[in-house]
Amino acid sequence: MSPQDPSTERHTIAVLVDNEPGVLARVIGLFSGRGYNIESLTVAEVDPENRRSRITLATSGTRMIIEQIKAQLSRLVPIHVVSDLTDDGPSVERELALIKVATADNRENRIESLRIADIFRARVVDSTPDSFVFEVTGASGKIDAFIGLMRPLGLADLSRTGVAAMARGRTGLLDGS
Amino acid sequence: MSPQDPSTERHTIAVLVDNEPGVLARVIGLFSGRGYNIESLTVAEVDPENRRSRITLATSGTRMIIEQIKAQLSRLVPIHVVSDLTDDGPSVERELALIKVATADNRENRIESLRIADIFRARVVDSTPDSFVFEVTGASGKIDAFIGLMRPLGLADLSRTGVAAMARGRTGLLDGS
Repeated sequence: MSPQDPSTERHTIAVLVDNEPGVLARVIGLFSGRGYNIESLTVAEVDPENRRSRITLATSGTRMIIEQIKAQLSRLVPIHVVSDLTDDGPSVERELALIKVATADNRENRIESLRIADIFRARVVDSTPDSFVFEVTGASGKIDAFIGLMRPLGLADLSRTGVAAMARGRTGLLDGS
Repeated sequence: MSPQDPSTERHTIAVLVDNEPGVLARVIGLFSGRGYNIESLTVAEVDPENRRSRITLATSGTRMIIEQIKAQLSRLVPIHVVSDLTDDGPSVERELALIKVATADNRENRIESLRIADIFRARVVDSTPDSFVFEVTGASGKIDAFIGLMRPLGLADLSRTGVAAMARGRTGLLDGS
């Protein structure tokens, strides 16, 4: 299925799981075994007391496939909560990227990279006479745009985290669930 | 193996893989099948032209286990580059977290959360009369410290991305490899 398919929706899904060996493998196995797409995945322990981790998945598919994914996630044993952040009201999505631009001896490209970084509120986290590493955060589309502008200036390295996401408002997955 | 074991090292490893279905499942299967620990994992497409994704893994183990992990990753078929950022000279590591603090009607906690956010250069990305969502970036230890200070004020939700990482200096995984 191509992302251009008009019936395809992009959903961000958060799941709260027991932090046990093999849980991540089972979640990813569910996706790869059925051919579901994973656009990005992040995982980290969020509740050390109860040993719970949170996996945030960005995926895309038809409405029917999204519903299948959520139903099957809910049935996986070590999963406690499945929250579709795309369906369940407004949410915040943020991603972080580290981007290295190596401009060799092109001084104009070096200045231009700093100018673009300023517009995107990116921070310089490493610098040599002919390279910078920038840290930038934002929605995935903003990061895509930043990378697209840096690529012709001498993109030498790129590491992005994938999406962290959360419902807006006062309630959260950790209070009482 | 406990993290307190003095012979245990924490390593951040970046791998460049073909962006194909099942590759992530194979990488994670290698870890879970042999009982290797995954502290955090991030994955994102970094080279659309050549359809390459970058997986950044934070793991811990004895020196022997780390060497085994790297050797076995190198043998996985769709992996092109394995880089141990902990061994191969100085590197930059950054993580992003979204942190929701719901202070109910405790006005002092609300003010205190803003004061702490200011110290950590966290940004408010959502606000209600009795809650905030903060975005904070930094090394994992800084994010741990921020969460630790917010927890007693009414931590309601937490999503963190895991580590994005990159060698300092001018060379990168995308130039010529």
